[in-house]
Amino acid sequence: MDQIPTHVTPRVEPTRGFGSLTSELGLLYGCDYNPEQWSREVWVEDVALMRAAGVNLVTVGVFSWALLEPQPGEFDMDWLGDVLDLLHAGGIAVDLATPSASPPAWMGVRWPETRAVTADGVRLSHGSRNHFCPSSSVYRERSLAIAGALVDRFASHPAVRMWHIGNEFGQVCHCDQCGAAFQTWLRARYGTLDELNRAWGTTFWSQCYFDWTEIIPPRAAPYLVNPTQTLDFRRFTSDQLLAMYTEQRDLVRTGSSGACVTTNFMGFHHLNDYWRWASEVDVIADDTYGDPADSDSPVRQALAHDLMRGLAGGAPWLLMEQAVSAVPWRGHNLPKTPGQTRLDSLRAIARGADGSCFFQWRQSAFGSERFHSALVPHAGPDTRLHRTVRAHGAELRRLDRVVGARVAARVALVFDWSSWWAAEEPAGPSTRLRVMDQMIAYYRPLWRAGIAVDIVSPGGDLAGYDLVVAPQLFLVDDPDARNLRGVVERGGVLVLGPFSGVADADAHIRLGRFPVQFADLVGGSGEEYCPLPDAGLRVRSAELGDFTATVWGERLRLDDGEAVATFTGDLDGSPAVLRRRAASGGEAWYVGTVPPQSVLDAIMGRAAASAGVVGTLGPGPLPDDVEAVQRGDVLFLLNAADEERVVALPGVHRDLLTAVRYNGAVLLGPQDAVALVAETA
Amino acid sequence: MDQIPTHVTPRVEPTRGFGSLTSELGLLYGCDYNPEQWSREVWVEDVALMRAAGVNLVTVGVFSWALLEPQPGEFDMDWLGDVLDLLHAGGIAVDLATPSASPPAWMGVRWPETRAVTADGVRLSHGSRNHFCPSSSVYRERSLAIAGALVDRFASHPAVRMWHIGNEFGQVCHCDQCGAAFQTWLRARYGTLDELNRAWGTTFWSQCYFDWTEIIPPRAAPYLVNPTQTLDFRRFTSDQLLAMYTEQRDLVRTGSSGACVTTNFMGFHHLNDYWRWASEVDVIADDTYGDPADSDSPVRQALAHDLMRGLAGGAPWLLMEQAVSAVPWRGHNLPKTPGQTRLDSLRAIARGADGSCFFQWRQSAFGSERFHSALVPHAGPDTRLHRTVRAHGAELRRLDRVVGARVAARVALVFDWSSWWAAEEPAGPSTRLRVMDQMIAYYRPLWRAGIAVDIVSPGGDLAGYDLVVAPQLFLVDDPDARNLRGVVERGGVLVLGPFSGVADADAHIRLGRFPVQFADLVGGSGEEYCPLPDAGLRVRSAELGDFTATVWGERLRLDDGEAVATFTGDLDGSPAVLRRRAASGGEAWYVGTVPPQSVLDAIMGRAAASAGVVGTLGPGPLPDDVEAVQRGDVLFLLNAADEERVVALPGVHRDLLTAVRYNGAVLLGPQDAVALVAETA
Amino acid sequence: MDQIPTHVTPRVEPTRGFGSLTSELGLLYGCDYNPEQWSREVWVEDVALMRAAGVNLVTVGVFSWALLEPQPGEFDMDWLGDVLDLLHAGGIAVDLATPSASPPAWMGVRWPETRAVTADGVRLSHGSRNHFCPSSSVYRERSLAIAGALVDRFASHPAVRMWHIGNEFGQVCHCDQCGAAFQTWLRARYGTLDELNRAWGTTFWSQCYFDWTEIIPPRAAPYLVNPTQTLDFRRFTSDQLLAMYTEQRDLVRTGSSGACVTTNFMGFHHLNDYWRWASEVDVIADDTYGDPADSDSPVRQALAHDLMRGLAGGAPWLLMEQAVSAVPWRGHNLPKTPGQTRLDSLRAIARGADGSCFFQWRQSAFGSERFHSALVPHAGPDTRLHRTVRAHGAELRRLDRVVGARVAARVALVFDWSSWWAAEEPAGPSTRLRVMDQMIAYYRPLWRAGIAVDIVSPGGDLAGYDLVVAPQLFLVDDPDARNLRGVVERGGVLVLGPFSGVADADAHIRLGRFPVQFADLVGGSGEEYCPLPDAGLRVRSAELGDFTATVWGERLRLDDGEAVATFTGDLDGSPAVLRRRAASGGEAWYVGTVPPQSVLDAIMGRAAASAGVVGTLGPGPLPDDVEAVQRGDVLFLLNAADEERVVALPGVHRDLLTAVRYNGAVLLGPQDAVALVAETA
Repeated sequence: MDQIPTHVTPRVEPTRGFGSLTSELGLLYGCDYNPEQWSREVWVEDVALMRAAGVNLVTVGVFSWALLEPQPGEFDMDWLGDVLDLLHAGGIAVDLATPSASPPAWMGVRWPETRAVTADGVRLSHGSRNHFCPSSSVYRERSLAIAGALVDRFASHPAVRMWHIGNEFGQVCHCDQCGAAFQTWLRARYGTLDELNRAWGTTFWSQCYFDWTEIIPPRAAPYLVNPTQTLDFRRFTSDQLLAMYTEQRDLVRTGSSGACVTTNFMGFHHLNDYWRWASEVDVIADDTYGDPADSDSPVRQALAHDLMRGLAGGAPWLLMEQAVSAVPWRGHNLPKTPGQTRLDSLRAIARGADGSCFFQWRQSAFGSERFHSALVPHAGPDTRLHRTVRAHGAELRRLDRVVGARVAARVALVFDWSSWWAAEEPAGPSTRLRVMDQMIAYYRPLWRAGIAVDIVSPGGDLAGYDLVVAPQLFLVDDPDARNLRGVVERGGVLVLGPFSGVADADAHIRLGRFPVQFADLVGGSGEEYCPLPDAGLRVRSAELGDFTATVWGERLRLDDGEAVATFTGDLDGSPAVLRRRAASGGEAWYVGTVPPQSVLDAIMGRAAASAGVVGTLGPGPLPDDVEAVQRGDVLFLLNAADEERVVALPGVHRDLLTAVRYNGAVLLGPQDAVALVAETA
Repeated sequence: MDQIPTHVTPRVEPTRGFGSLTSELGLLYGCDYNPEQWSREVWVEDVALMRAAGVNLVTVGVFSWALLEPQPGEFDMDWLGDVLDLLHAGGIAVDLATPSASPPAWMGVRWPETRAVTADGVRLSHGSRNHFCPSSSVYRERSLAIAGALVDRFASHPAVRMWHIGNEFGQVCHCDQCGAAFQTWLRARYGTLDELNRAWGTTFWSQCYFDWTEIIPPRAAPYLVNPTQTLDFRRFTSDQLLAMYTEQRDLVRTGSSGACVTTNFMGFHHLNDYWRWASEVDVIADDTYGDPADSDSPVRQALAHDLMRGLAGGAPWLLMEQAVSAVPWRGHNLPKTPGQTRLDSLRAIARGADGSCFFQWRQSAFGSERFHSALVPHAGPDTRLHRTVRAHGAELRRLDRVVGARVAARVALVFDWSSWWAAEEPAGPSTRLRVMDQMIAYYRPLWRAGIAVDIVSPGGDLAGYDLVVAPQLFLVDDPDARNLRGVVERGGVLVLGPFSGVADADAHIRLGRFPVQFADLVGGSGEEYCPLPDAGLRVRSAELGDFTATVWGERLRLDDGEAVATFTGDLDGSPAVLRRRAASGGEAWYVGTVPPQSVLDAIMGRAAASAGVVGTLGPGPLPDDVEAVQRGDVLFLLNAADEERVVALPGVHRDLLTAVRYNGAVLLGPQDAVALVAETA
Repeated sequence: MDQIPTHVTPRVEPTRGFGSLTSELGLLYGCDYNPEQWSREVWVEDVALMRAAGVNLVTVGVFSWALLEPQPGEFDMDWLGDVLDLLHAGGIAVDLATPSASPPAWMGVRWPETRAVTADGVRLSHGSRNHFCPSSSVYRERSLAIAGALVDRFASHPAVRMWHIGNEFGQVCHCDQCGAAFQTWLRARYGTLDELNRAWGTTFWSQCYFDWTEIIPPRAAPYLVNPTQTLDFRRFTSDQLLAMYTEQRDLVRTGSSGACVTTNFMGFHHLNDYWRWASEVDVIADDTYGDPADSDSPVRQALAHDLMRGLAGGAPWLLMEQAVSAVPWRGHNLPKTPGQTRLDSLRAIARGADGSCFFQWRQSAFGSERFHSALVPHAGPDTRLHRTVRAHGAELRRLDRVVGARVAARVALVFDWSSWWAAEEPAGPSTRLRVMDQMIAYYRPLWRAGIAVDIVSPGGDLAGYDLVVAPQLFLVDDPDARNLRGVVERGGVLVLGPFSGVADADAHIRLGRFPVQFADLVGGSGEEYCPLPDAGLRVRSAELGDFTATVWGERLRLDDGEAVATFTGDLDGSPAVLRRRAASGGEAWYVGTVPPQSVLDAIMGRAAASAGVVGTLGPGPLPDDVEAVQRGDVLFLLNAADEERVVALPGVHRDLLTAVRYNGAVLLGPQDAVALVAETA
């Protein structure tokens, strides 16, 4: 199976610097390391414990600005040098951070304009983190200054193998500096005020602009704010953060040679359009905090990982942060079992990560995250948690053969930030239809079947995919629509979920019977979105069995397609699910409702069958809670259940983790995993 | 039945200009029209489609300020002239709006003080609508300037038959300008600071004022704000908006001759005391957005319509806005069925409207209301929705005989804004007793029985009513109390709901056994309000049957009345429902609790029987979900059920809508209606 | 039983001035009196009614500032003099208030900086009460000025027997003046910035301070604020309010001779560390507003009263405010039955109060508390409520023998404000574990058993207690830990609830196996806090019976103690309840979970038995809802049930309230009470 070529053209240079690091070190295993919270004696113990645990990469300096620059322009970097020396002596590589995520108190005090402002006009204060305004020239200059000082001092330090720009970019600011930057961004986007007025639809509610300076970020208003203004402000915010990132990255690149530069993404984070960020990082790195209390967590994490692989164009990526056990910010924070800790880490490796790192090394004794689990807990290393950490560090070494290997997927799930933003603006037909709910609902049957899925952008290269699924693609511009239509025209299968193809790039509703760009393809068309009453609405389907749809309906008309399912009641006769076979042999589905998961599973099963796509282990179902992923020549089977599971598997396989051989069937322990390679007969 | 004289003295000149419009055009049928969102080609199509749909009135210009005055003092009105010409050529009358609801961005940018401020001190921004401060002199002057320019240009345009001042007045602002205006308003109300201090009860919590300038609007405070300060600020706010309205109205009246001037009310809107507005508009016009997901919606809409008729003193009014299907602002927005669309429109006609208009003509492609249904949906005119619009436009022509006709009511339901405001100030006995809940609860049995009801103010002329019901009249001044007592003194029936007659005009609690002004009339009196435990409290009643009361009880004592029902438990022996027959033959009820609806139905049935009031179709019950209203010589029967209903009706009737004749019984289709006239035998 | 010596060393001088007052007047009975809301004619009636009701103390002037000082520096105190003369002539003592709780409007208008600012930067306005900034020098000076003027004028007035400084201190302000005061407070606490940086853990998230002026109160921030900064700001806030109090108290003490000075506490109020306040008041005075809708209210009130007795070091205290029936601020406000009114008052007397007062005398006709019940309701004195007030005033006279008597307790419940604050900072393991829930849960079995309990601070004198219980003592400094350990070392029993002994005084987590300071004592230790899944987790226990724990678990290890109960499932084998007998014969328990109340009852029963502690009536259980408290030689039995209860009681007792004699058993009526003294055989 590892002969199947990966068909996705990588968008980034295959991991500038990152490949050489993993070639040398194998899978990365590590964590954030915040030595400034501890004494020098502890540092020494830390390095010894890290070595014992198999840690080979730590991220240092993320929150060190105040200690590195106690007064503006006065740098004190010796202590950090000592840390790097110690780590290097211990054989541990360093991902050195620029500390811009949390500027010192002195900055906000001296230059209040460096602090962000809410939509209500409240200027935020220091005392937490991330209180900066991303448009503040003072903040930006001083961020570059400290980054430059770090580069000057440490770029050639042998420990430093990676650079980590800022941390979890995700600020929003509504201040006047951001307003001015927004105006500049809009000028660049639209050129003329006429074009902006057209795009924003400012003839509605008398919002026309006659001067660029009249334009402001969305701020507290008596009622709904212009949705395109809001959409563009989201786009601007993502771009503004990206600009912060790239200017630091460029400075680091200039000063350092070869070390890869990145920052940590946050999965399906609402504030950043990572499709625009992806090509700017040398390796895609992600923070994933699965909720151990959520039985859906394995599916959600898998989806996030597949997004990262999609952002990386199929190339290896890095799980930069995860929790080894509980987090402190969920209200009621369950710990992870050792099994969950291992499965969560292996899931990332299985899905293309070339490293599995954690936040953080040693559990803080103070500060707002003192109840965030860490590799060395408050109770010290002689704990079940730390023993799990050591054992996992050791077992990762047995998986080094997957370094650089890819996951081959014939299915693409389409996701777009602008579309998400626009779909969930206030004052749509229903707040109950949520993009991420739809993403999970359409992804789940593929996950259950062990079918590999790439998350792609609507404008991405779809050539290699036989099945393309857009669970709720509200906003589609014309080139992207052509791209999606191409799937069917090439003989592939396209599945569109409800409320897709509604709006253009300006979030204007496309006029005509919807989905305007796809109606001919799906063989039917609609005239009204019909959120359903709380009791739902019965749907008749010979093919899928009758069912009760909830949340969402649409008044559709059958044109030259098939009505796979048909509404009753107030929508009597309106198709609920449309399908049309194209002359090319391709097939297009339109699901104009929210069916029960079991019905959606059947729809996706039929679509996959039409596309000739089967699961990693063939067409049959996997046992419940079992996840199967083929990466390179290694088959990962993960069992999230609290019970044993048996997976039938023809031939002889060897588990890299335990060296056990299986013939014909694999026994998976509760919350356990295997990493199998086929034995040559 | 149409011989029964309407007994309500109209408060407004019978529709200055409005009557001549409906005499000429018949029932009005139309919508808001926002041509600025569309190209000139579309305008031409619009007029043709309007004519085909029977549209005879459109409201134009509500949100046109920015296009009409791109820079302060620079007017560009030619495009609007073209629109008016086109409409006029198409035979469509125009309700021309002054655009003050949404000032252009340039106003808020140049004059920040024109923007409203929240109680927290946040100055609102443009980007939405209605961000103005109603006390801003700059805003007020510029509003008059643009209104004046419109009058100069278009007052004599033959299309312009009505003027629409602003839109849905409903702002609150807490800025210093409003503070100064509030001081002026208070000086006018109270004359002296001593009187203000007395009225506000400022000896409580050391709030005495020694200078007018110390007085401010209610703003963010650590705890409860003075309730009379809040009450007066609500009164001021309504009056301040009304002052904005009247100054524009006066300007329009001066410049135009004969066209009626109005603005659109919003039913039981919390911010405006429409009793004070009613005499200032030339025709009462209302916006009603019934929720198709709410099975109570027909009752709620009927109540709102009866309020409008009450405000109009019985004269015809105008349904200015409604949704043809879904709105976008409820979170989960169900569409209307064609049946609901028709019934909602006919309900207004039945209840005295001389026109049925919608928001809006063509569904916006952009802006915050792009998911608000419109007469021409995104999918265009070849849709079920637009076909419904056309059919309804046609059928309205068959109802033109009701133009100018009145609905005769012998029952009045008393409603007062000051009382509502005061009753729901924080820190009352219970937030679970809600004025509007009580209004609906007492109105419902009358609605079900097909009994016509006028909504009246407590100071209104009650001479013609045999049954007067005040569901929860917390605040009653002495003249109003005398007015209500007069009902019984004249031999009529008065029903007072719980927590009525509690406070005086300053919201001071009347001292003594409550309801102080009515205790002798109802034959009993109370000493403590007793919100009930969650499980409720059993009540014994030989007359009504035992029942469980919820939410509210009162410790009452029987004096010389009857205890129709009596509490058990902690209120053992306290009457729950009091009744007393007066020497005049009149009768007074006091319901000191919240009984189940069925018990309240029985109470109201007995009260109506005592008053000799029967339903439009006689004393028997109507079938469930059927609404019966006699307007002039036309009997409207509306069936909100999804099933057929049969209504017994002696004699031969002809349905104006279908020309079908019924003898002895009428068959009503699901969600269908008839408009019957008796055939002379 | 009254021979048992009270063993708690009083912290305050036994009621400076208070003792002489109660010696003279007996139990105090009274209320807040706000004559400024009423006419002089009413004053005369008031005094007569007070006398008839047995009122002997009223608090006057709490909200009189504006009337006493209509303009800055212009005092008008004659009216108050008249009130005092009238009261004195009527034989009613006065607790004269300084009016600082509610400054006049003129102050906030002239000096905006006297008004408090929220964390969002909103400056609060007048119109309510308590809008002052406690750090404002203008406000503080003017507060002293009016207090001084009152002292000058009235200190020697014969009516004035007590002083009431301000009212319900409980402000928080985030303004710059508070910021500066906070800096000063921090300098005093920490001496150096290095020490502050260490204590606050500012190396976390780059928060280091290099200048005192950089430090601010916790204000709006993008994410979690430093928890020690927040903790210290809470400490500062309490101290700042206390400083306001003490400066007024000192002024009053200087000017008046002998009258006791106090202010009214608010039970377990979140904003004040009353352990720090207790020694500054001459008598502990408290406001308790039990919720009549809450069946737990008797337990909650008892706990609050026992706190007051603890704050008083066992000396008599004063119930300064309670509601005679409904309050207006709970949303849905049930009235009290006469039985509840009496029981609530007697409960305080039983638990050490030497007086029972109410808010307020006459129910306000206006203002925000017009629906707050009062001793004379709106309906006047001829009401059930006022008859209850009179009867209760009379019966209190029969209890005067308890004046000065103490309640002897051998059980202490440990409570600490810093620990409460720190435990409920955001971002802990679970928001579902709440300190007050735990306090009630551990207190309830003691209450049910009729076991007297003192609430003590962790640093208090524990010498006299055989059983000491710390339900959730998150933060314990080392001296306090030694203090608690001493209980076991002396042979007593210590019970520690979950999540105790976690942090040091800076809220830093103690490193090592928890509870670090107590692990040896309880014979086991933990390594991870494990909030439980919603379904809970089964626990096995031979001793207690198996049960399902909820909310909270801990991964514990048994060392040399006993596992009284053991988790299954994900925590399989981890002890849930630990116990260890010490060489001293003492015993320590650690409850690392939240068991069902019945299981906790069993644990507490066993711990009490080990400590040799039995209930007031012996080891057997009390009937449900019956409360038994021995104060001096009087045994109070209170029955909160709506039914009769029989309590077995050996020997002959006489009820002071009714003079009825009981032999062997006492019959308690529904919601009734007895106050028994043993008859000498």
